Amino acid sequence: MGMTIGEKIIARAAKVPEVKAGEIHTVELDRLMSNDGTTHLTIDMFHNDLKHPKIADKDKLVFIIDHNIPAENPKTAEAHRKMRNFAREHKIAFYEGKGVCHQIMVEDYVCPGELIMGADSHTCTYGALGAFGTGIGCTDFLYGMVTGTSWVMVPETIRFELTGNLKEGVYARDLILSIIGMVGANGCNYKIMEFAGEGAHNLSINERLVLCNLAVEAGAKTGIVEPDEKVVEYVESRGRKAENLFISDEDAHFEKVYHINLDEIEPVVARPHLIDDVVPVEEVKDVKIDEAFLGSCNNGRIDELRLAAEILKGKKVHEDVRFLIAPASNEVYMQALDEGLIDVFMDAGAMVMNSNCSVCWGSCQGVIGEGEVLISTGTRNFKGRAGHPDSYVYLGSAATVTASAIAGKIVRR
Amino acid sequence: MGMTIGEKIIARAAKVPEVKAGEIHTVELDRLMSNDGTTHLTIDMFHNDLKHPKIADKDKLVFIIDHNIPAENPKTAEAHRKMRNFAREHKIAFYEGKGVCHQIMVEDYVCPGELIMGADSHTCTYGALGAFGTGIGCTDFLYGMVTGTSWVMVPETIRFELTGNLKEGVYARDLILSIIGMVGANGCNYKIMEFAGEGAHNLSINERLVLCNLAVEAGAKTGIVEPDEKVVEYVESRGRKAENLFISDEDAHFEKVYHINLDEIEPVVARPHLIDDVVPVEEVKDVKIDEAFLGSCNNGRIDELRLAAEILKGKKVHEDVRFLIAPASNEVYMQALDEGLIDVFMDAGAMVMNSNCSVCWGSCQGVIGEGEVLISTGTRNFKGRAGHPDSYVYLGSAATVTASAIAGKIVRR
Repeated sequence: MGMTIGEKIIARAAKVPEVKAGEIHTVELDRLMSNDGTTHLTIDMFHNDLKHPKIADKDKLVFIIDHNIPAENPKTAEAHRKMRNFAREHKIAFYEGKGVCHQIMVEDYVCPGELIMGADSHTCTYGALGAFGTGIGCTDFLYGMVTGTSWVMVPETIRFELTGNLKEGVYARDLILSIIGMVGANGCNYKIMEFAGEGAHNLSINERLVLCNLAVEAGAKTGIVEPDEKVVEYVESRGRKAENLFISDEDAHFEKVYHINLDEIEPVVARPHLIDDVVPVEEVKDVKIDEAFLGSCNNGRIDELRLAAEILKGKKVHEDVRFLIAPASNEVYMQALDEGLIDVFMDAGAMVMNSNCSVCWGSCQGVIGEGEVLISTGTRNFKGRAGHPDSYVYLGSAATVTASAIAGKIVRR
Repeated sequence: MGMTIGEKIIARAAKVPEVKAGEIHTVELDRLMSNDGTTHLTIDMFHNDLKHPKIADKDKLVFIIDHNIPAENPKTAEAHRKMRNFAREHKIAFYEGKGVCHQIMVEDYVCPGELIMGADSHTCTYGALGAFGTGIGCTDFLYGMVTGTSWVMVPETIRFELTGNLKEGVYARDLILSIIGMVGANGCNYKIMEFAGEGAHNLSINERLVLCNLAVEAGAKTGIVEPDEKVVEYVESRGRKAENLFISDEDAHFEKVYHINLDEIEPVVARPHLIDDVVPVEEVKDVKIDEAFLGSCNNGRIDELRLAAEILKGKKVHEDVRFLIAPASNEVYMQALDEGLIDVFMDAGAMVMNSNCSVCWGSCQGVIGEGEVLISTGTRNFKGRAGHPDSYVYLGSAATVTASAIAGKIVRR
């Protein structure tokens, strides 16, 4: 029987001709990424718990400080120092304050067909380039770092057959939130979400990144868009080779197939405190907001910044709203500088932050207080995600977030 | 007997023809500034402790959120919310994330001859425009807010008679650090530092701001530069009137007069952990640094950003150094954008932050860890000011800080 994209990637990493859902395989990892969320814990275990600490292949490792950068307290500074020194000592690729980890990985590392584990949930982002990225904890990261390998129980694949095109004013963010609303936050638990069909190929690389990035929010092990020429073009434009463009065989087994017509997608928001509580923007319109956030590995790339600037130009952020904008990487930031977008943001009264996880991570920048309401392009809206346990996070597209920042309340652009 | 500048300002505010050092006077305040360091405490007292809470004149009040912006935790978010809501309710001028409080006050409010109290030590900055600015605690702020008045024990005045010009490569920052090194951190306790003479008039408004801002670090009640046409020009260019340009009478009493030849000033740094431990840059050269900071109410204006960009252009920040740059206000930020300075900073690998107190305040951005070394254009270098109690802060000019950020160690430009 044939294999799905995800199965093919696992088979390649396991160096076996074929894998089936439900099997457990040892896999050779192509890359391991860890950020300042947990790297200091991995390092502690490496030093304190291992009898023979060693690194299998330093060239597979990437350490990225993006969560609490710049450090907001001495404890964070200490965690960063540990990470920085370890990276220097072992000559590990190291990024500090250069952008959100997944954005950097996509810009500098990810290739189609690779199996990448990252100590961060949203490692599933890499499926936009036809790779299998998945999040692991720091103990699994340690294992991968020491052996260069890990293990995978092959997930079932759920196929999302996309047709058509997103309408004007509707974004990939609305699409993935709509999908999560449809399948539920546990709807794809430990599955591979495979996005394919003519509709998937109509999506840009940025839109695919948005799609795959949130796969984990439906519980998925990863999300993968069927790779095509757009992937080849992107990867080659970054000086890398695109050699393993896997697509599912005609007789591959899918646990389920969803058919989605992109033309039917409308602007939506996920209401607090569940990401699958997805409703049309109109249904929550006039909800007053205290803060708006544009950024994150989901929605902080140049396309979203351009969109926000287009909406903001000549307008002002509402006087009752803090509007924080954090470009997803320094490359994005510099592009935005070149295009004059940062000027537009500043003119409008937004607060432009350094490239980092910022409000999405809710632990060092733009934290919201008791009873406050945030509309965000971030990845999550569970209780307390952006600050106080009794605060409220709505998730929407860059267009909805920006229009709401101007209006002082949630509005459809 | 004649009066000094400071005495004349107090006499005007006390509505008496003459005051003498050592007298206590009730004064009518021209303006009261409070930031997010303590405003929430003032508001708590206003609501909880006053029998008849009232505000004497809301138009005299300015509330500015600049210390922990954007909020780094829910407690800060709550303090901000209290301040924001109070400002809205009472129609108090309110700035959030628009810049460091003193920079905003200078840009938008301060006039020569005014007596201004601010709930922040560096309120003495306003002397650059010939005003008497001084820092108070939040209880004194409450008194001022309720009555529109306060009291002053008239300080003795110490005159700094300046001659000559700062040499190329020597900055106002070197001058004031040298003065503090000379007089000591308690050398001007409760005195007015009056800067006058031809050398003072040679200084730009920016240089005067640098000078007065650090007066409190010599223990002074305030610092005032003899106002002149440059002050009139600056204040009028901001749409305000410059009516009360006081200068000391020939027979005014000075407790002491220092004569300083600006030509003799050399680039210096203040070593940890005392601001009066001032030595030539050469004496600490090759001290390795972990972080560099350009910003603050002392040294984050366009002149310093231009200088830093000139030094950074075409170079890279040392790989072992985080270089944080926070423009002192959004106006400065936007000017820097216009001039392409932000591009230079980003190209060089610096981290550009929103306008705020940032590293200088050491509580939410760029906090340093145990044993780490910072070179900074901030206001203070006492133990733990920038983070961990066992960390080290050197203070230097924007030129020294930038050159050091490139070299990875302290160097003279």
